[in-house]
Amino acid sequence: MRPLVLASASPRRVELLRGAGFDFEVIVPQVEEAHDPSLTPEDLTIENARRKALAASLLKPGALVLGADTLVYVDGDPLAKPADMNEALHMLRRLSGRSHEVCTGAAFACDGKVVRELHVITHVTFKTLHDTVIREYHSKVNPLDKAGAYGAQTCTEMIIERMDGSFTNVVGLPVEEATTALLELQG
Amino acid sequence: MRPLVLASASPRRVELLRGAGFDFEVIVPQVEEAHDPSLTPEDLTIENARRKALAASLLKPGALVLGADTLVYVDGDPLAKPADMNEALHMLRRLSGRSHEVCTGAAFACDGKVVRELHVITHVTFKTLHDTVIREYHSKVNPLDKAGAYGAQTCTEMIIERMDGSFTNVVGLPVEEATTALLELQG
Repeated sequence: MRPLVLASASPRRVELLRGAGFDFEVIVPQVEEAHDPSLTPEDLTIENARRKALAASLLKPGALVLGADTLVYVDGDPLAKPADMNEALHMLRRLSGRSHEVCTGAAFACDGKVVRELHVITHVTFKTLHDTVIREYHSKVNPLDKAGAYGAQTCTEMIIERMDGSFTNVVGLPVEEATTALLELQG
Repeated sequence: MRPLVLASASPRRVELLRGAGFDFEVIVPQVEEAHDPSLTPEDLTIENARRKALAASLLKPGALVLGADTLVYVDGDPLAKPADMNEALHMLRRLSGRSHEVCTGAAFACDGKVVRELHVITHVTFKTLHDTVIREYHSKVNPLDKAGAYGAQTCTEMIIERMDGSFTNVVGLPVEEATTALLELQG
């Protein structure tokens, strides 16, 4: 069986993939991420997942490499990680009291070739959030390393009212879909 | 405006209702809960919510009282709080790798009369959980005060793969639906 590599610095993806029972090495390649807002959520996240997976795959010949990228979409605009706490506040104000989409694209590469791609979209509805709640939430959860300035895995009930679709996808890796693909590719 | 009473000992319901911006008093009445498995999820949870709301309403004349009851349903069987850690382990084994329903019934009472009822059902899909994961989860989350031996608000990503519907309903109170009803009743 080929060794498995996760091409991501996200501790949440590491934890999710470990929780699914996989042994793997983490390699975080230096790639320039695409930000083209004219791309669809799946095209943009898959493009970034491909870049990460391909770059790491060149560093580890023979390995199966998983790259992933998660973005929050509201009114068709992608929200990446906020640059500072002020942008984080503005992001949650924009998400307050309404629904948005979270899209994770994943790409699997081996020896410099992409061998599989997938994406998963989850619909998330936020509570109406007053600034005091947003500030309290951001005092408990660091928004700066999270697309859309929130994480679904901590203090969820402070901000999220409902969810339709994969929960693990919102955390950063759609575990069920990624596991199915990995088992097929490891075959 | 009539004073508001929450007829529930659940700290999670207290937190959710506070988070929605309501001021209220907590009164935990002594009631015998119904367990009739021949009732539908909505009928059984609403029946228990009615008993709690009515009992507390007699203790606080003139107040609007909210009672609630949350049950986990799998194959039509209601799962209440487990009696001990062994039953908690068996409950999560039964929920592993499949979908179940979580139903919260809520009843609003005033001066010994029920003035409104509602129920919300959320579909939850669990990851495949090995016993080691269940034991680790139960070392972090006390299952004995939670219907179905789990809570959606802590270590969610260890056990839950996907969710379709209200998240706060799974925690114990469907905040959006309860808020709408409360605002109408408070008029």
